[in-house]
Amino acid sequence: MEKEKAEQEEQVVNPWEVSAKGTGKIDYDKLIDQFGCQRLDKSFVDRVFRLTSRTPHMFLRRNVFFAHRDFNEILDAYERGEKFYLYTGRGPSSEALHLGHLVPFMFTKYLQEAFKVPLVIQLTDDEKCMWKNLTVEESKRLARENAKDIIACGFDISRTFIFSDFDYVGGAFYENMVKVAKCVTYNKVVGIFGFTGEDHIGKISFPPVQAVPSFPSHSIYWGMGSDDASGHSNFVDAMMRQDPYFRMTRDVAPRLGYNKPALIESLFFPTLQGETGKMSASDANSAIYVTDSQKDIKYKVNKYAFSGGKDSVENHRKYGANLEVDIPFKYLSFFLDDDEELEHIRKEYARAAVTDEMVDAFMAVRPLPNMFN
Amino acid sequence: MEKEKAEQEEQVVNPWEVSAKGTGKIDYDKLIDQFGCQRLDKSFVDRVFRLTSRTPHMFLRRNVFFAHRDFNEILDAYERGEKFYLYTGRGPSSEALHLGHLVPFMFTKYLQEAFKVPLVIQLTDDEKCMWKNLTVEESKRLARENAKDIIACGFDISRTFIFSDFDYVGGAFYENMVKVAKCVTYNKVVGIFGFTGEDHIGKISFPPVQAVPSFPSHSIYWGMGSDDASGHSNFVDAMMRQDPYFRMTRDVAPRLGYNKPALIESLFFPTLQGETGKMSASDANSAIYVTDSQKDIKYKVNKYAFSGGKDSVENHRKYGANLEVDIPFKYLSFFLDDDEELEHIRKEYARAAVTDEMVDAFMAVRPLPNMFN
Repeated sequence: MEKEKAEQEEQVVNPWEVSAKGTGKIDYDKLIDQFGCQRLDKSFVDRVFRLTSRTPHMFLRRNVFFAHRDFNEILDAYERGEKFYLYTGRGPSSEALHLGHLVPFMFTKYLQEAFKVPLVIQLTDDEKCMWKNLTVEESKRLARENAKDIIACGFDISRTFIFSDFDYVGGAFYENMVKVAKCVTYNKVVGIFGFTGEDHIGKISFPPVQAVPSFPSHSIYWGMGSDDASGHSNFVDAMMRQDPYFRMTRDVAPRLGYNKPALIESLFFPTLQGETGKMSASDANSAIYVTDSQKDIKYKVNKYAFSGGKDSVENHRKYGANLEVDIPFKYLSFFLDDDEELEHIRKEYARAAVTDEMVDAFMAVRPLPNMFN
Repeated sequence: MEKEKAEQEEQVVNPWEVSAKGTGKIDYDKLIDQFGCQRLDKSFVDRVFRLTSRTPHMFLRRNVFFAHRDFNEILDAYERGEKFYLYTGRGPSSEALHLGHLVPFMFTKYLQEAFKVPLVIQLTDDEKCMWKNLTVEESKRLARENAKDIIACGFDISRTFIFSDFDYVGGAFYENMVKVAKCVTYNKVVGIFGFTGEDHIGKISFPPVQAVPSFPSHSIYWGMGSDDASGHSNFVDAMMRQDPYFRMTRDVAPRLGYNKPALIESLFFPTLQGETGKMSASDANSAIYVTDSQKDIKYKVNKYAFSGGKDSVENHRKYGANLEVDIPFKYLSFFLDDDEELEHIRKEYARAAVTDEMVDAFMAVRPLPNMFN
């Protein structure tokens, strides 16, 4: 079972926990093997460039999105002029989004623009109510607040539907939840998600909720006849840790008469403290929030960001920085769009320990064309 | 655990299976002890008479409804002028209702009239979709068909809400499902319902769906402010085998800030073949359907009804009938309103084996004032 294998490799990756052990870094190659998805190599990036006639997003170029399932089939469908739609989501557990949260939304916005496709965004307030033990009212409130930050990423109102589960579950959506649930045994969800007998039945009921948006049965979203939608494919943009939901969904889809959703997956956005884990909304100093001021950001990066520099100026000048673990450099690789500038910094930093320079580069006043609309 | 005890006593009673073993009859005293509810004795029947100023329904007089939880508190509330509402339901697994199905609806109609209270009726099409492996469409269709037979029992349109789960789940109902689910562990539902690892997660998700109508949060049903409804009690009218759902619901209710639902429970309506089980829609010859013609009924009773008469006229004249197991007599005790006539038949039959007479009495053209509106 996936969970047992994960424990043996001493890293834990599931929708509710991400932690590396041993070397302190997530071993992505191992994760790809373990989960059974595929590496996203340069040929894909080139193909996307050819098909969309625009520079691929830096997240593709930098391999922030690095794994996939059937992305090639989505590109094939697109080439044939067939329709697909996008699905991404967020579990609204904190008031403001942090940088790690923004990664899938920035990328999804790019996909929407590049391929000119519709998008559904699921806000899993029910999930957070259950896992974080929030009240229904609080989780719904957070969902609505988060929707504002998400909208600010610049999605196309004419092609984007955002929904909160508590508001939206019902009708055709609930029918599909039941259909999915009939296809998955308790033993199966234990194997995928690691539930135990002490878990409440809400958790056990939840996986179908995250599966259902993958099925183009929401002609209700679009006002189309169901015949139009039934042949559509779905392309899911998610963090790697959500993979278990989509393995389950892909297994169930054909039994319900739907195409398997394709998937593209990103690295975890590292905490300020380093690659040992994922930026978490429950530890304010592990993250930089969209609401943090410039002063906050400078303070946090200076105080908490894990440095790949050596312990003395002498050693650093001799050996350079370890860019594998240096957090400010990693942040730049996520957000600094200019490849040349990034390469320049990489080379320079590898030979210097000027942390202030890194922070300044990160905080330079300059256009970020994909960050906000 | 309740289920293990049930297996030791060799009778099985849960929402999906009712079977007696050993003596061949359901041992109701044992069931009451095992489930932990209370006997409904004559003092209740008298009190209902005094409070409602009308003859108590024959199902109360004959102890067809024989067990309860907190019925006294409902009567106390009623005396104080406080509000309560009724909740009953049906799992729509067959096209036409049979006599056993009618019992709770006939009784609920009486309760509505006697106490002048609102009523919600839940049609669990999702449950039947999952347990009977029906398609969503088929289960919704059966729910609608059954609603017609239920309405024909004569409920008050101004105070009755009937809903199908597939149509109705969502919004406040779904919020309550999540709240209930958070309060119940997987181990707990295994203990109550006997689920196993091979059961699909739809079954495990279902108990909250049957619990939620017990909570007066459906101000949405009534257009009242939630303040009005929150203090209301709920009185559930169900078959004894549904008791496990309501034990769970009563356990959860205080944690959600609601009153525990009170419950009144009926005997199982015996199959034609005898007291060994419950009339089942999946065996057409075990049941008499509302759609059966007079000829069908006469045929079925003659051919299949288990007789309590002795095996020879001589023995029957000497010992009389065993009315404990005689099905035609039992049917009369359910449906023949006239107590004197029933007593007369009891005495006469106990000394005769005239099966035709029993059938004729059962099929006599005579008013059945509570059967249809």
